[in-house]
Amino acid sequence: MNSNNTQSSILIIGAGLCGSLLALRMAQRGYQVQLIEKRPDLREVHQDAGRSINLAFSDRGMKGIKRVGLEEEVKKLCIPMHGRMIHNLGAEPFMSNYSGRDNEYINSISRTDLNAMLLDACDKMDNIEIKYNLACKNVSLEEAKATFEDYTTKEQTTFSADVILGADGAGSSVRKSMFLNKNFLFSFSQDYLTHGYKELSIPPAENNGYRTFKNALHIWPRGEDMLIALPNLDGSFTVTLFLPYSDSDYCYDTLTTPEMVTEYFEKEFPDVLELIPNLAEEFFENPTGPLGTIKCSPWHCYGKNLILGDAAHAIVPFYGQGMNASFEDVAVFDDILDAHEGESWEAIFKAYEAARKPDTDAIANLAVDNFHEMKEHTASDLFQQKRKLEMAFEAEFPEDYHSKYSLVTFKEDIGYKEAKMRGRAQDKAILNLLDDGKLPDTLPLKEKLNIVNKETQDILHDDEVIGNL
Amino acid sequence: MNSNNTQSSILIIGAGLCGSLLALRMAQRGYQVQLIEKRPDLREVHQDAGRSINLAFSDRGMKGIKRVGLEEEVKKLCIPMHGRMIHNLGAEPFMSNYSGRDNEYINSISRTDLNAMLLDACDKMDNIEIKYNLACKNVSLEEAKATFEDYTTKEQTTFSADVILGADGAGSSVRKSMFLNKNFLFSFSQDYLTHGYKELSIPPAENNGYRTFKNALHIWPRGEDMLIALPNLDGSFTVTLFLPYSDSDYCYDTLTTPEMVTEYFEKEFPDVLELIPNLAEEFFENPTGPLGTIKCSPWHCYGKNLILGDAAHAIVPFYGQGMNASFEDVAVFDDILDAHEGESWEAIFKAYEAARKPDTDAIANLAVDNFHEMKEHTASDLFQQKRKLEMAFEAEFPEDYHSKYSLVTFKEDIGYKEAKMRGRAQDKAILNLLDDGKLPDTLPLKEKLNIVNKETQDILHDDEVIGNL
Repeated sequence: MNSNNTQSSILIIGAGLCGSLLALRMAQRGYQVQLIEKRPDLREVHQDAGRSINLAFSDRGMKGIKRVGLEEEVKKLCIPMHGRMIHNLGAEPFMSNYSGRDNEYINSISRTDLNAMLLDACDKMDNIEIKYNLACKNVSLEEAKATFEDYTTKEQTTFSADVILGADGAGSSVRKSMFLNKNFLFSFSQDYLTHGYKELSIPPAENNGYRTFKNALHIWPRGEDMLIALPNLDGSFTVTLFLPYSDSDYCYDTLTTPEMVTEYFEKEFPDVLELIPNLAEEFFENPTGPLGTIKCSPWHCYGKNLILGDAAHAIVPFYGQGMNASFEDVAVFDDILDAHEGESWEAIFKAYEAARKPDTDAIANLAVDNFHEMKEHTASDLFQQKRKLEMAFEAEFPEDYHSKYSLVTFKEDIGYKEAKMRGRAQDKAILNLLDDGKLPDTLPLKEKLNIVNKETQDILHDDEVIGNL
Repeated sequence: MNSNNTQSSILIIGAGLCGSLLALRMAQRGYQVQLIEKRPDLREVHQDAGRSINLAFSDRGMKGIKRVGLEEEVKKLCIPMHGRMIHNLGAEPFMSNYSGRDNEYINSISRTDLNAMLLDACDKMDNIEIKYNLACKNVSLEEAKATFEDYTTKEQTTFSADVILGADGAGSSVRKSMFLNKNFLFSFSQDYLTHGYKELSIPPAENNGYRTFKNALHIWPRGEDMLIALPNLDGSFTVTLFLPYSDSDYCYDTLTTPEMVTEYFEKEFPDVLELIPNLAEEFFENPTGPLGTIKCSPWHCYGKNLILGDAAHAIVPFYGQGMNASFEDVAVFDDILDAHEGESWEAIFKAYEAARKPDTDAIANLAVDNFHEMKEHTASDLFQQKRKLEMAFEAEFPEDYHSKYSLVTFKEDIGYKEAKMRGRAQDKAILNLLDDGKLPDTLPLKEKLNIVNKETQDILHDDEVIGNL
């Protein structure tokens, strides 16, 4: 039995956000860590344009960051976003806050800056060795041996360790080796949305000012399509267009000329057109990325290999939780290591998957739901009534009400699964009560809250009767 | 554009149940059909033991069979099963009917006999050419060319056609070629249950009599494990054990000696032990099969390739709908060919997937749910109360009530998706009404039905408010 103790050597594949945080925490626990990355050191090269330059960082991400003591360093990189600035066509934009509590907001953060900060911290640890430009080609899972190809020389090298932790992202080589292994059953899914994404940019105003309101996540919901924008520290915004690949008047298949792109923006996003000087150039230079969800099980095999982060559960970006979920993985794994000290790696991996997978499955589904909410519902009346009521509940009764968004994003002490279950029941309760006219304006707010809570409990109870049958 | 007309040559890969029915219908429509099968002609060889020897055949399967005019031939192979005979441990078995209407029941049928009957019918068609012992190795999707390897000579041959229809089952080569193709996004999932299945057999009594009640699907529900038995025409029953692979006192990992297998059956299935004389021998000789669900999309590509049946949507066997769904595929495809006469194959394939996929997704989920219902709930009190009430509704008001089971199994005029939505809402209504004491025995049956229908409508409406938001 491959027993877990700090003499264990650990090979971490992937030095992205998840892998570098994981390496740091494992090194702090005393393990010998080799961290191997396919790409060059991102602190030394110019970054690719058009590949999620900034991200939403919130409480679950901070939970992981706290484990390694870097909260102050991260805060310096954060731009608070207090809500969604919703730009309906032909109307004044309005702000829809993420929470009625002032201390609850999300942040825009640069992926590169955050990753560089983590790598700087890794460099300071004597027991982490980092190698770049080595792409994992395959993993001999039974032996915990991985073969890598050098980007420049194409030379192949094999590394082995007591355990391999695969943090090698949505296209994970470790996961692929598990998929191809015929000695165990591997459940796996890859699900693509009909839409792809493309990044564009709003440049800074003079003196690094912002061309539109800084402290918000901007959304231009258009039913089937959507544009969003997140602020960067230098005054620019990273804009992302979500558009169908095909089967629509305006889609990637039809937007093939600068004229068509301009026509589309003139019609759907006239206010944005003014803010993006190089629209057509960026549209055709930047890649179109797919939006996929990956789930699988088991996450581990032979008591020697485990996948974490996007490698185990890649999700679509619409809840702003991809990186937060990966960082929370590190915190959960850290807890499991505490709880199972001295036990075998197999027992640890099993306990970790059992504890974690229900939550990552939940956030995967929530993220797909939020795609529809963002592009369609943020513009709808019933939805806006619900959000206003929830903001009022949270402001007046901050201890007694948390919307689904708050449960998912800010209540890092409960898991995604519970947040999803409670949040969906609340949404169903409020929307149906509003639809049935059972929350008239004349009712005091406290009474409305009681009615919503009662209805929510009834919904959860009815579901439980079925579930437990 | 690859246009659809009866001059089109069609290559069907797989001459199992779906492929042979499809070949027959396409030939009846006038197409030139090549039908290629990996295995030998099943009419000429002895069959493998332990691989779903019999199946449940019901109305949706008959819908496909009617298209080729073979209903009388099929009926000769059918053994009606009017309900579940439930064998609780230490109690007398009791019958739980599938419907309160006398004309609604399912049938046990031999996979081999049914397939042979379809191949006999194919042999009579001048425009079907069947080849055996040719395993598909890969498909050049853009060119509609498939390469096959001869089982005996290992020689490779390539066949091409205007369109390829992949009916090559859960392990489909056509689907694998689509999965590996990088020119389009392919959503795919394979999901395994924690349980595997193993087939055993109860031999005939003297003079081809039956050792237990003939006209039922027998279930021995044991919470985590389950045994079922379906009758064969020769007096035998095919028994299937559903047991976890691991992490249980009795599981495939622990049942490694004849003594352990006998101990397990003595404890859990003492009445069955008497009926299976060669238990240990069969247990160790027959393979353990996985229970997986496969979903994917798109089902077609380049306007030249389409997958149908298990190749597109393999499901677990617990609703008895695997073969029925595949036969219904042929009926739906036949309707689409009528509705889109003269249009391109691409338009036909798109219309077919749009019409059919929501239904096959629904039956996949229903089948997994039914696994839990069969092994756990058939033994529960609340569930039995619900079933009794539903039987009474169906017997007294045959036009006004159809249980979820009836909607899925016998109402072949509605799709699986609608059956699932209505059926689940009814289940939720009845179970919660029973649990809340709102259907007391003193109420007349008609009034109970009204209450159930009202509650069902409310549930559907509440879900609609959320869904449409």
